[in-house]
Amino acid sequence: MRNLVAMTVLMAAAPVAAADPMAAAAQLRDRALAGNTAYSIVTGLTTEIGPRLAATPAEAHARDWVAAKMTALGLAKVHVQTFAVPHWERGVETATTIGADPQRLALTALGASGGTPAAGIDADVVQFADIDALKAAPAGNLKGKIAFIDHAMRTAQDGSSYGAFNAVRTAGPAIAASKGAAAYIHRSLATGPARLPHTGVTRFPDDVAPIPAAALSVPDAMQLTRLVASGPIRLHLVLTPKRFAPGTSGNVVGEITGTDKPGEVVLVGGHLDSWDLGTGAIDDAAGVAITLGAAKVIVDAIKDGTLPPPRRTIRVVAFGDEESAGPLGGATYLKGHPADTVVLAAESDFGADRVWSLHARTASPPAVAALARILSPLGIAPSPLPAHGGTDVEAAVEAGAAVIDLAQDGTRYFDLHHSADDTLDKIDPAQMTQNVAAWTAMLWWAANVDSDLRPVKQP
Amino acid sequence: MRNLVAMTVLMAAAPVAAADPMAAAAQLRDRALAGNTAYSIVTGLTTEIGPRLAATPAEAHARDWVAAKMTALGLAKVHVQTFAVPHWERGVETATTIGADPQRLALTALGASGGTPAAGIDADVVQFADIDALKAAPAGNLKGKIAFIDHAMRTAQDGSSYGAFNAVRTAGPAIAASKGAAAYIHRSLATGPARLPHTGVTRFPDDVAPIPAAALSVPDAMQLTRLVASGPIRLHLVLTPKRFAPGTSGNVVGEITGTDKPGEVVLVGGHLDSWDLGTGAIDDAAGVAITLGAAKVIVDAIKDGTLPPPRRTIRVVAFGDEESAGPLGGATYLKGHPADTVVLAAESDFGADRVWSLHARTASPPAVAALARILSPLGIAPSPLPAHGGTDVEAAVEAGAAVIDLAQDGTRYFDLHHSADDTLDKIDPAQMTQNVAAWTAMLWWAANVDSDLRPVKQP
Repeated sequence: MRNLVAMTVLMAAAPVAAADPMAAAAQLRDRALAGNTAYSIVTGLTTEIGPRLAATPAEAHARDWVAAKMTALGLAKVHVQTFAVPHWERGVETATTIGADPQRLALTALGASGGTPAAGIDADVVQFADIDALKAAPAGNLKGKIAFIDHAMRTAQDGSSYGAFNAVRTAGPAIAASKGAAAYIHRSLATGPARLPHTGVTRFPDDVAPIPAAALSVPDAMQLTRLVASGPIRLHLVLTPKRFAPGTSGNVVGEITGTDKPGEVVLVGGHLDSWDLGTGAIDDAAGVAITLGAAKVIVDAIKDGTLPPPRRTIRVVAFGDEESAGPLGGATYLKGHPADTVVLAAESDFGADRVWSLHARTASPPAVAALARILSPLGIAPSPLPAHGGTDVEAAVEAGAAVIDLAQDGTRYFDLHHSADDTLDKIDPAQMTQNVAAWTAMLWWAANVDSDLRPVKQP
Repeated sequence: MRNLVAMTVLMAAAPVAAADPMAAAAQLRDRALAGNTAYSIVTGLTTEIGPRLAATPAEAHARDWVAAKMTALGLAKVHVQTFAVPHWERGVETATTIGADPQRLALTALGASGGTPAAGIDADVVQFADIDALKAAPAGNLKGKIAFIDHAMRTAQDGSSYGAFNAVRTAGPAIAASKGAAAYIHRSLATGPARLPHTGVTRFPDDVAPIPAAALSVPDAMQLTRLVASGPIRLHLVLTPKRFAPGTSGNVVGEITGTDKPGEVVLVGGHLDSWDLGTGAIDDAAGVAITLGAAKVIVDAIKDGTLPPPRRTIRVVAFGDEESAGPLGGATYLKGHPADTVVLAAESDFGADRVWSLHARTASPPAVAALARILSPLGIAPSPLPAHGGTDVEAAVEAGAAVIDLAQDGTRYFDLHHSADDTLDKIDPAQMTQNVAAWTAMLWWAANVDSDLRPVKQP
């Protein structure tokens, strides 16, 4: 009985959908709400493969896993593009206060951190209020010391506090090294109260030798600040990460080939690599799963005759090493597909909590308004604030692609991000499905809308 | 100007208070709400000493710290009672799945756990639905295997789910050992989603040789359950805790000596030892701080002439090793004070979140009703459910003391309890102060009420 009703609805809907891309987008949105492909993908990747640090065998196995999954889902032209990336792996990491009652502080090496000798180092802690105070320290002033920055990243739904404090992790270690510091530690770029440190990449310019650099958990940074306030503190620090010769990462690419405009590509995806501490569920198996889940809804609608194939090509990419190599996966994608034009690019790389706002940079505001109407029932509001894309689509955006951000609720993202707590249990399947519905509608819209979405002026 | 107003209030209140213990209790309650001694104590203990595992130098330093603090607060007859306790310390602890993509699982040894060789063991995982399923396994059935129990402790404001699952930790390892298991692992007795395991003591009868026994964090137990469901799982397990000769723990005792009934004692406190993973803030520096903070309010009121000393003696104890030795600290207290009678006993050992209900076992329900009226403005409701006391006052309760429970909100207690997350930042100073206010009023009531509170019939 239920099947009969469903078929009647589909048969009635099909002609409308083919004629009117917005009606079809709405229909696909609702169809997506009934599915769970994305949650099944994120479960499989994080359980069967687990952590997927760039250039490791696990990352390579994840590529095989996703390529097989794309094929099974019905995507076309599935292929892998490999590229060379830095290969760095974590070692032992401990920090203990030296004194009558030694206390162990929870910390973790930053990606690209240098190492201490295996036996560790003993050094005094010098605290700086912020990165500017560290910059202001005289040259040589930190010789043999551990520089320490505590700070106060704040919870924000849009994640904006991360950008504000990012230099503490990315630039702090090199600044401390240039002033002679033996090591650098900082409060994790994190909002959560769990006693788990949050890693992330740091950068040393070629003329600065890497020093040991690590993030303390938020409670440990607070404890160290209290300890430093009550008298001189000396730490025994062991950090033994290793730097290997460059290794291999890679993008996995699949598509729904367009009909009358196959060379116009709607490029979407997430990144497949993850940090090693958790299983990379929210960062970013979720993004891979959401975009593949959305593609699957469209593939199924084409298969069962509800819809014809889209006019433009929808290309889904599980990008390689984003965490260490940054935009290299996106650049590799572009280099490998020179004949196509990316008309619109979008990335899902901010977890799996609900999408709350739509940001766009396109040549056609009326087309975006039409999309906003389709997304409104999902609780998604159009925003006048700029769209940014994401690290993995940066190259396409720079080449002139239009951009859509389906901005996710980041309230708890930095409680978990880059820490051991980035695990499957942190994903709410219902919110993930809302993401898939939004992406499904957006993909159909972008692949079929009459308006030209590009070229877009660079800001 | 503010001082003048305050003095006027105190001078007016003093005669009322002396004449009427309930009016004085209400006055002290409000005075306590303006103080912060407890938060300062819990900050000092957890920052200056840190973790306080029984029989370690840190626990001994904590005794010195508290004895000095009691004296500074103005308590009388401050003394330490030492007693012998088990001495066990954690070693290396890692668990890694064996296979193409090894995954590290976060786990921690249970107190009294046996050890693996330093190089660890490789063994197959056999999962049991619950402790009854483990009990039902045939003898010898687990030879060379790692027994694993996952389960689902639920959040409850009264913490009741902990009792329901307690045997999984306390009895599970010995049951598995008796069936030949090489090791035992279980989902932490915990409600929180953080990837931090929760330790706690387990027990091996004399005729069962201890095996390695450890708790997985909640997300890791969920991951292992998913992995086991998809095929046979083998783990590489390293657990190298050490058992030492019995060591020394001890109670720190101080008092406000009673006037006309000094041999009738109101016995309160918390325990000073903690597990080693966190700094023992909620378990149980908080209990020590809350009860000492309450005593301090009364000492100050006596000092400034607002109140006369209480009729009965208020004795505050920072009990020694509760985590491993259980009720031994309470028994040692009783043995060392044979001339006194504990008329009422109460312990604070459930964190620092707000008190929400009053449970009593006394010979005088009307006296309890009077106390309930004083506690009502703090949002504390009288409960008809039984009062239990606490591990450290068990001996006094068995000897016939009346019991008061000032039951704390345990909603998030088992998110943190016995894990690395038991740190100062988890304590809300405002809720802690509400605790102190309740304890202050209760102490004055118990030490001055006309009614006999005991003897109490054992249930």
